[in-house]
Amino acid sequence: MLLIGKCLRVPAPHLTGFALKLFVWLVEVPLIGSFIMSYVKKQNKMFEILRKTKIPEAPMFKPEFPPQEMEAGVVVIEEDIRPTDRVDLALKCLPSYDPARCWTGDSVPFLYWKIRDYAHAYRSRLVTPSMVAENIISAVEELNNKKPPMALFVTFSAEEVRKQAAASTRRFEEGNPLSILDGIFMAIKDDIDCCPYPTKGATTWLHEVRTVEKDAVSVSRLRSCGVIFVGKANMHELGLGTTGNNPNYGTTRNPHDVERYTGGSSSGPAAIVASGLCSAALGTDGGGSVRIPSSLCGVVGLKSTYGRTDMKGALCDSGTVEIIGPIASTVEDVMLVYAAISGSSPADRISLKPSPPCLPNLSSYDSSFSLGSLRLGKYTEWFNDVYSTNISNKCSDVLNLLSTTHGCEIIDIVIPEIHEMRTAHVVSIGSESLCSLTPDCEDGKGTKLTHDTRTNLALFRSFSASDYVAAQCLRRRMMYYHLEIFKKVDIIVTPTTGMTAPMIPPSSLSSGETNLHVSGYLMRFVIAANLLGLPAISVPVGHDKQGLPVGLQLIGRPWGEASILRLASAVEELCEKSRKKPAIFYDILKK
Amino acid sequence: MLLIGKCLRVPAPHLTGFALKLFVWLVEVPLIGSFIMSYVKKQNKMFEILRKTKIPEAPMFKPEFPPQEMEAGVVVIEEDIRPTDRVDLALKCLPSYDPARCWTGDSVPFLYWKIRDYAHAYRSRLVTPSMVAENIISAVEELNNKKPPMALFVTFSAEEVRKQAAASTRRFEEGNPLSILDGIFMAIKDDIDCCPYPTKGATTWLHEVRTVEKDAVSVSRLRSCGVIFVGKANMHELGLGTTGNNPNYGTTRNPHDVERYTGGSSSGPAAIVASGLCSAALGTDGGGSVRIPSSLCGVVGLKSTYGRTDMKGALCDSGTVEIIGPIASTVEDVMLVYAAISGSSPADRISLKPSPPCLPNLSSYDSSFSLGSLRLGKYTEWFNDVYSTNISNKCSDVLNLLSTTHGCEIIDIVIPEIHEMRTAHVVSIGSESLCSLTPDCEDGKGTKLTHDTRTNLALFRSFSASDYVAAQCLRRRMMYYHLEIFKKVDIIVTPTTGMTAPMIPPSSLSSGETNLHVSGYLMRFVIAANLLGLPAISVPVGHDKQGLPVGLQLIGRPWGEASILRLASAVEELCEKSRKKPAIFYDILKK
Repeated sequence: MLLIGKCLRVPAPHLTGFALKLFVWLVEVPLIGSFIMSYVKKQNKMFEILRKTKIPEAPMFKPEFPPQEMEAGVVVIEEDIRPTDRVDLALKCLPSYDPARCWTGDSVPFLYWKIRDYAHAYRSRLVTPSMVAENIISAVEELNNKKPPMALFVTFSAEEVRKQAAASTRRFEEGNPLSILDGIFMAIKDDIDCCPYPTKGATTWLHEVRTVEKDAVSVSRLRSCGVIFVGKANMHELGLGTTGNNPNYGTTRNPHDVERYTGGSSSGPAAIVASGLCSAALGTDGGGSVRIPSSLCGVVGLKSTYGRTDMKGALCDSGTVEIIGPIASTVEDVMLVYAAISGSSPADRISLKPSPPCLPNLSSYDSSFSLGSLRLGKYTEWFNDVYSTNISNKCSDVLNLLSTTHGCEIIDIVIPEIHEMRTAHVVSIGSESLCSLTPDCEDGKGTKLTHDTRTNLALFRSFSASDYVAAQCLRRRMMYYHLEIFKKVDIIVTPTTGMTAPMIPPSSLSSGETNLHVSGYLMRFVIAANLLGLPAISVPVGHDKQGLPVGLQLIGRPWGEASILRLASAVEELCEKSRKKPAIFYDILKK
Repeated sequence: MLLIGKCLRVPAPHLTGFALKLFVWLVEVPLIGSFIMSYVKKQNKMFEILRKTKIPEAPMFKPEFPPQEMEAGVVVIEEDIRPTDRVDLALKCLPSYDPARCWTGDSVPFLYWKIRDYAHAYRSRLVTPSMVAENIISAVEELNNKKPPMALFVTFSAEEVRKQAAASTRRFEEGNPLSILDGIFMAIKDDIDCCPYPTKGATTWLHEVRTVEKDAVSVSRLRSCGVIFVGKANMHELGLGTTGNNPNYGTTRNPHDVERYTGGSSSGPAAIVASGLCSAALGTDGGGSVRIPSSLCGVVGLKSTYGRTDMKGALCDSGTVEIIGPIASTVEDVMLVYAAISGSSPADRISLKPSPPCLPNLSSYDSSFSLGSLRLGKYTEWFNDVYSTNISNKCSDVLNLLSTTHGCEIIDIVIPEIHEMRTAHVVSIGSESLCSLTPDCEDGKGTKLTHDTRTNLALFRSFSASDYVAAQCLRRRMMYYHLEIFKKVDIIVTPTTGMTAPMIPPSSLSSGETNLHVSGYLMRFVIAANLLGLPAISVPVGHDKQGLPVGLQLIGRPWGEASILRLASAVEELCEKSRKKPAIFYDILKK
């Protein structure tokens, strides 16, 4: 039930241990379960919204975008060229690289080594991918032996990492690296296919009924650029939760405070990047699953426009709200990975007519675009709707800085019918997830899921086909509201989450947890980008009083990744000095 | 339950009168109803298809078409020009008009007066629209007084007909008719808005909660051409059935045999055209509702490609399987009305990217296209799956004639997974209908619906959101199968219905009827065009031994209306002599 977030009032808002088990048992008993779910839905006005209200809009089953104008100062990253060529184009968008900034002293120049730092080190023969691989392998071993374990991976194979690193090392020796991403270490969320690893979705059984025969499209694009895949990153089971709690493979620990959650569902990818183990990771984002953990772990996470990435080979490849998105320590690394994986599926090219993927030209040669021309929308009520004013203050400070430093205009906006939007989102993602899981559940696998997942599925089963259609009518209405807002502003700015990393209750480790209070705070600002397919990015803007990272979310127009990346880069620069090294941190490149 | 057709095995396959009432009472009792519906769905393998089978395809929520090549020998009927200009273009596609063929003798040259016969009569001052209006008014009066009443209209107003006719007469007197359609009398199905009539969907209450403020887009296009709207034609309540049974406004009688059904749901439109009262009518077709009654009443009915007509102002304007389509006595009249109403909605233009509407150039000036180049697909199993060999023989005869006369190639095809296709269709149309009705049902209107409708709604309520998504995955698979077939053939040819007009059981008149045997035979060949959005037309090809009309269905490629209209015109010519005057027939123009 964590998925549902703030919108759900239930009889028991926080359950762990035996209480959660009992609750799951009750909701799975046919009559009692229906009664509980009816009660839950009534309490949350779901009947009122989906069954008692006439919604004049026609259903919008997938995001439908009006044609968009191309922005100024961008570089088009053609879909039809090779990923390596796209990465080359992306590279030209970056400010020039100055190795002197990185390799003169003993310390990391920025908090994290960037992809270009690795690339420089490999090309200068200062280090080889195989050497880095050994550093990673020993770090993972160390982390596994920690008490509590960090639980970063579902699948990790030292042998496989060595093999891939050796191949990359050979390419460098032969003077033929494939791209700037050659020898770059990445983790892949466990719901995206990546050979030779199994895809379990962090369940205990999925790999038994679904074998991985080839890489997901986005993984294969990265592989063609020379990326080394260290393993399958941990996640909230099947992506159906936002904390990263996982009794199957352990709950991923936040590198900034191991007693706290990373956020989810891409818990492993965010923690692996935040701890310095890998330069980047791929996550999936259907309800904030890339942005929430990025925010809570102090790294950058991009949710691109719906259809921008080819989802083939991801568990959620049939959904209407999900994308595969990169998590990295910096905006420039997110840009490089985004360039490699972007490109719509053949079907989406026909039905969505995407504008071509673009990147902002941040190189010093280009000054055709002024940040000051960006109008930023701020919904003040959202800035107040947070657990601690630490968050809203940090975010407001950044907005003020953008206004004073770059001349961005801050415009007050109102986002209406947010409860309706959340309802439409949970019905959509829930029904689509349930549909893909139903044959396995019918086959007896349902009882092997965690109690948290089972609670969610019980709710999802209670949605009727008519509810689903009504939710799609609401989707069209919400799209209208947002497109109206985008006539007045270029980017909507919100805190990414309403709270920083929450504590992990010890009682939740073995049997899971459902905590609506927490999930409400985590999900409240991220939903629009999923339901409406809009691009959004989370970028770190500092820390709260407990030293936990705070993230700022930028939501862009359809296909408007370039704008939000440009602004994110500016925000990053403004806030760079306030970023802090996590408690769990490896200086992998120089170790 | 009539809607579900052959695919449903239920405890009681044929119910009328008290038995039907009892059944409805049972299915609406919470627990017993769920149990019955579970039983029904299990019997019909719905659980197996929708919940136990992994469907690898991603959902296709609306028909998605690959780009289509334009056919040879067609005239483009631009979407952006005025309807009157489109009708002018359509007129140029027709063979030249020879008034000598019509007005020399006392009898109607063809069985029915065509639109161009009316147009000639008006322009030659042989008759005025006002004179025709009086003939119609007195005929309707006569029919209303008949025992049994023909039940053609839900709303008819002599005053309104006179008013519109007077305006048209004035235009002719002033020498300024608006188009060839000026003064042409049409009926509009009661689920399409047409001022000043209420839209009841043939219910007893819908007009109380939904007022008509302006014409539906297609009606407004016809009005701009000068069409006179005689009233709102009767239909199966809310379109949720295929016989035309309607206890609210009387069951429409088949003009060929008043003891028999017209078929539905566009029962009134087909009967009004068949009886000679009007030149044409608009129906809606979400599960054969234009084609079935056209077939049973011996007239022509066109279901265009999904999205070809702007559905705004129709009750089913949010559906994914419905279109508004013309019914007329001849293919040329269907072409004229189609030209007037065609043109996608702004939203569909973006999301469906329609090829422009086209008509076949049938004028003697054009010989750029040979019928012999058309490859016709025949699924032999379907020709055998009919109630009486009369039907299959008639249809096979026509295919043979097309082969011998025009050189068309007949190619054997197989259409796989038909039961899956029916399941996907009933879940789609059922859930979408239910969604639009739910707020009114929650408001207490549900008990004012007919027992037949209530049985259907009880089934639809039992569909889960996950079932709906699974049905959409099946839709993508079925689309694939059909597009593969269309690589080998240009047009799929089937009987329109598996039986000719069935008897109306007297016990069904007051309380309705559910007869799965009958609806199965009526619906078995029409579903693909709805689920996949393909264009299809029913054209009369003669009569069975009881003198009841037999219809042939031609299913075309996406946006391929021109091809099926061309072939339909050839079929019509081959079968013209075998058409018979209905028992109820008015020679309205010359009366």
